Amino acid sequence: MSSQQFLDSWQGHRALTRRVIDAFPEDKLFTYTIGGMRPFSALAMEFIGMAVPTLNGVITGKWEQFTEAKATTKAELLQKWDDGTAEINALWPKIPAARFQEVDTAFGQWKMPIYDLLLYVRDNEIHHRGQGYVYLRSLGIEPPPFWERA
Amino acid sequence: MSSQQFLDSWQGHRALTRRVIDAFPEDKLFTYTIGGMRPFSALAMEFIGMAVPTLNGVITGKWEQFTEAKATTKAELLQKWDDGTAEINALWPKIPAARFQEVDTAFGQWKMPIYDLLLYVRDNEIHHRGQGYVYLRSLGIEPPPFWERA
Repeated sequence: MSSQQFLDSWQGHRALTRRVIDAFPEDKLFTYTIGGMRPFSALAMEFIGMAVPTLNGVITGKWEQFTEAKATTKAELLQKWDDGTAEINALWPKIPAARFQEVDTAFGQWKMPIYDLLLYVRDNEIHHRGQGYVYLRSLGIEPPPFWERA
Repeated sequence: MSSQQFLDSWQGHRALTRRVIDAFPEDKLFTYTIGGMRPFSALAMEFIGMAVPTLNGVITGKWEQFTEAKATTKAELLQKWDDGTAEINALWPKIPAARFQEVDTAFGQWKMPIYDLLLYVRDNEIHHRGQGYVYLRSLGIEPPPFWERA
């Protein structure tokens, strides 16, 4: 899988996550939970807070703190999501090809190859988005199809 | 990402899915649902039914039907899981390196590059396993940590 193919796959998943955010009623997005887990807005803000800081660390080798994104309305959250999408597209080509196989200690804590770190960020989103599907179904809302990624 | 790295990542996720299966009480594994979704046993059987038939198609270019795995106890399900793990490890080295970038119509239905098809099978498992985490939490059971993959 090439670097561009990884980016396309990730952004395809991110487009789906955006539709899942948008499928929530405004209030449920910020309040609805099952089993003591976080509401879906908090999960979406975690994804936003991981993506660009991770790419900055990958590119520079300097690891800033995770920034927790903050949003209090769906419109604000979707705007931050779209800002992240554009930033990811702008940053991605700056990753040198050889960098993907290098081992680094991300955020001073996680020592792993860069490709594996990027997979982690991507997989974490798929994992928690699956949680969002259960929230939506239990609210009687049909989630967007998992296989549509454009 | 190399072919071996993809396999290691997938099997790491599969090891985690096995722990999620095992975390369910016997009866809840086959009966517990939220929002009209399938019980986790049905999801696990879907993963088993996709993995080896997909690899056979990737290797031979011939696409058999998906086989729905059948199991009525947790022990039987875990045994089929472990059989699948061994089969995947045996089949994977038979995929020619150039095959990953070829486009094929999997199971007569899904036209896509092979690497993308294999990602789909892997991501589908992460997605539905996230659903299993909600089932466990809502049953008051702490799921295995998402970041442990060995």
